[in-house]
Amino acid sequence: MSKSIKLAILGLGTVGTGVINLINDNLAELKRRSGRDIIITEVGTRRQRDDIDPTIMQNSDLMAIAASDNVDIVIEVIGGTTLAKDIITHAIKHGKHVVTANKALLAEHGNEIFALAEAHNVHVAYEAAVAGGIPIIKVMREALAANKIDWLAGIINGTGNFIMTEMRDTGRPFADVLAEAQALGYAEADPTFDVEGIDAAHKLALLASIAFGMPLQFDKVYCEGITEITLQDVNYAEQLGYRIKHVGFAVRRTNAEGEEGIELRVHPTLIPQNALLANVNGVKNAVLVNSHPLGQTLYYGDGAGAGATASAVMADVMDLVRVLGCERSDSNAQSNTDAYSQKGQIGHHVPHLSFMPEQLSNTPILRAEQMITGYYLRVHAYDNPGVLADITRILSDAGINIDAILQKPAHKVGQVPVIILTLPVVESQMNLAIEKIQNLAAVTDKVVRIRLDELA
Amino acid sequence: MSKSIKLAILGLGTVGTGVINLINDNLAELKRRSGRDIIITEVGTRRQRDDIDPTIMQNSDLMAIAASDNVDIVIEVIGGTTLAKDIITHAIKHGKHVVTANKALLAEHGNEIFALAEAHNVHVAYEAAVAGGIPIIKVMREALAANKIDWLAGIINGTGNFIMTEMRDTGRPFADVLAEAQALGYAEADPTFDVEGIDAAHKLALLASIAFGMPLQFDKVYCEGITEITLQDVNYAEQLGYRIKHVGFAVRRTNAEGEEGIELRVHPTLIPQNALLANVNGVKNAVLVNSHPLGQTLYYGDGAGAGATASAVMADVMDLVRVLGCERSDSNAQSNTDAYSQKGQIGHHVPHLSFMPEQLSNTPILRAEQMITGYYLRVHAYDNPGVLADITRILSDAGINIDAILQKPAHKVGQVPVIILTLPVVESQMNLAIEKIQNLAAVTDKVVRIRLDELA
Repeated sequence: MSKSIKLAILGLGTVGTGVINLINDNLAELKRRSGRDIIITEVGTRRQRDDIDPTIMQNSDLMAIAASDNVDIVIEVIGGTTLAKDIITHAIKHGKHVVTANKALLAEHGNEIFALAEAHNVHVAYEAAVAGGIPIIKVMREALAANKIDWLAGIINGTGNFIMTEMRDTGRPFADVLAEAQALGYAEADPTFDVEGIDAAHKLALLASIAFGMPLQFDKVYCEGITEITLQDVNYAEQLGYRIKHVGFAVRRTNAEGEEGIELRVHPTLIPQNALLANVNGVKNAVLVNSHPLGQTLYYGDGAGAGATASAVMADVMDLVRVLGCERSDSNAQSNTDAYSQKGQIGHHVPHLSFMPEQLSNTPILRAEQMITGYYLRVHAYDNPGVLADITRILSDAGINIDAILQKPAHKVGQVPVIILTLPVVESQMNLAIEKIQNLAAVTDKVVRIRLDELA
Repeated sequence: MSKSIKLAILGLGTVGTGVINLINDNLAELKRRSGRDIIITEVGTRRQRDDIDPTIMQNSDLMAIAASDNVDIVIEVIGGTTLAKDIITHAIKHGKHVVTANKALLAEHGNEIFALAEAHNVHVAYEAAVAGGIPIIKVMREALAANKIDWLAGIINGTGNFIMTEMRDTGRPFADVLAEAQALGYAEADPTFDVEGIDAAHKLALLASIAFGMPLQFDKVYCEGITEITLQDVNYAEQLGYRIKHVGFAVRRTNAEGEEGIELRVHPTLIPQNALLANVNGVKNAVLVNSHPLGQTLYYGDGAGAGATASAVMADVMDLVRVLGCERSDSNAQSNTDAYSQKGQIGHHVPHLSFMPEQLSNTPILRAEQMITGYYLRVHAYDNPGVLADITRILSDAGINIDAILQKPAHKVGQVPVIILTLPVVESQMNLAIEKIQNLAAVTDKVVRIRLDELA
């Protein structure tokens, strides 16, 4: 067996422990698949741990580990965007490959980190950063490498999906279900990151860059949370054959002049009940990708948790292990592993963002008002003759096509909810129409709007 | 831009033409992702074609193309197991990498072909051979490389799935729907390969080898077709919360002595209605993989067709392109592409069957009688008191646990169908029990048995 691969694990929380457990459980499989010994040489942990194999060096100085001669690959699983950034930068500068699960760090500082890695001829692998154990990064960068990607739609936050699933299945309101998610450990004490879609936006920024070949632009993701979703709308959606999910979309649009623009948006969305994506329940994740010439493919699994994340982290390690020391023939093996040891050379040419760095495009990200989606509208109005005519007239005047109307029995005396589904429309047009509807004398409450996508 | 990559496409049927179209449509994306020029230099076709770019050499001598100095990668899409084998062998011996969609050839002769490729330091890539455009080979070989795979279940034949879907959705019997599938071009004039599960068994053999790390053993796949499935059973299954699909299973079993055995089987199967796999409809394919520590992941998309197959073929090409000439640094690029040109050297160490060739195991494939599955039984009996007691007593004596019983109204005078779902049981025990049930005086027709899997 050729040279061993030495891993450092920085951070011994859920994920770091998961990686250690995976290696213990599956070492035979790892060796049979890689033909190499895989050894954890160092772990970074604030306090000395008794439950770690004594042959593994424990060190609270993470920067020292990142530069250690006894480490080939640095696995960063401490999270956060400050210390983690320093450590990764340090590791790259010392010629180490890096494997990270840190979506926030990459979404916000990935351009800089990847450029540094390119300059130092090392790889920063990040399968675990998006959709946990689902190999969506590998799929999009490699398996779909011959396709032109038109759009993708992903349920990429397990907490949000758990809440939407439970609201529908149990008929309990958002606040109740959120409290349950917190009790179960699915949601943080401060759930903002999940329920406002920020976590999903981090992941979407990564997916969009590798889909369309453009720099990371997390700050341009339009983001709408699920906190305002009511049971009323969940139920009306079901009656109309749809289901409300919190979905991240990255869509390539071409306007009449042939100019391309990209929509990056995370928002509650009505999707058809019979779509596979609508049947992704609980904390599960899935990503649906539409590309040419392949068409639609979907990837489903656990988006979080120790096992799933460790699986993705170690898939990245296996990628690196299998390509370190490029040549298979014995005559070359020695010189290659030496070359690797000296300067962290990597054979595999898959670029960090799937496209060659010099080929990344500056395709503009569209503003919210330029985005095109279908809509679900709920309008509460006095049950006057003519109200429905007024509403449909406003929509028609704005060039908005109605796909379905559902008029429900009054739930307050004399007031009826009118539900309208529209075909896709530019948001700025919809904004104007909603303003006019809102101003109708018979309309009593704020018009509720939720986007709708047929995923077709 | 560094050295161009020269492709030969052998066979200009649906898939070959699909590959040409993909390259024409997406050349900009291919270049942006690979940093290389990708050129079709030669195509193999029996008769001269007018619709091919005149800069591409057309040649009816496929063996000559496979050995041509003007070709880096040979794409074999002629199909069949005779000429295709000669061509691939010839190409390998001339140091060419090979990309093929030929599941039958690999399932039956893959051990020999992969060994030859290893000896000549080239790669035979075959993503398109299983589940069309779904990147299941890459996923299992690379993305799940750190997992121990417990089992997989796949809908891996589109024709069969179309038939099962239509029978349920339209209430038409097998023969009708088969005729429609033939009219639509989904099924061949001789549909044996699809409806008897042979095509699925080819693919399952490949999936199982890369899942468990063992040589290809197509001849040991247990195979049962869908020709006997009746609407009656489709409907009873639905009433019980299940759906009948034609599924390929590869399952790792460990007996009480800790000895491992593998089940390889393709057969009609009741699976839970609410499972994503049960909602894979029409000609679509999907593979569900259960692995440790990742858990269940599912991969869904088009299992056939020009676009999907071309996508998988060209993903393999992109893998080869991205790793040909291992080093990225300019100083090394020249020597590496030279080394490649001279002897087809490949950097990427992912073994053909995912595990290192010398690490493939001889885990035994279990005989049908040793396999363990749940069962759906349909017993027609005279409506005598005591018949149900007799049947359940026989099952209970055989140690078979009943999960559900459904007694339907008589459909012939005095005769009732009794539907029984069982928990998993060793097939040999079920055989004995069914023999006894069949011999009951009150039982009128042949007992119908269909396997059942909870996918849990």
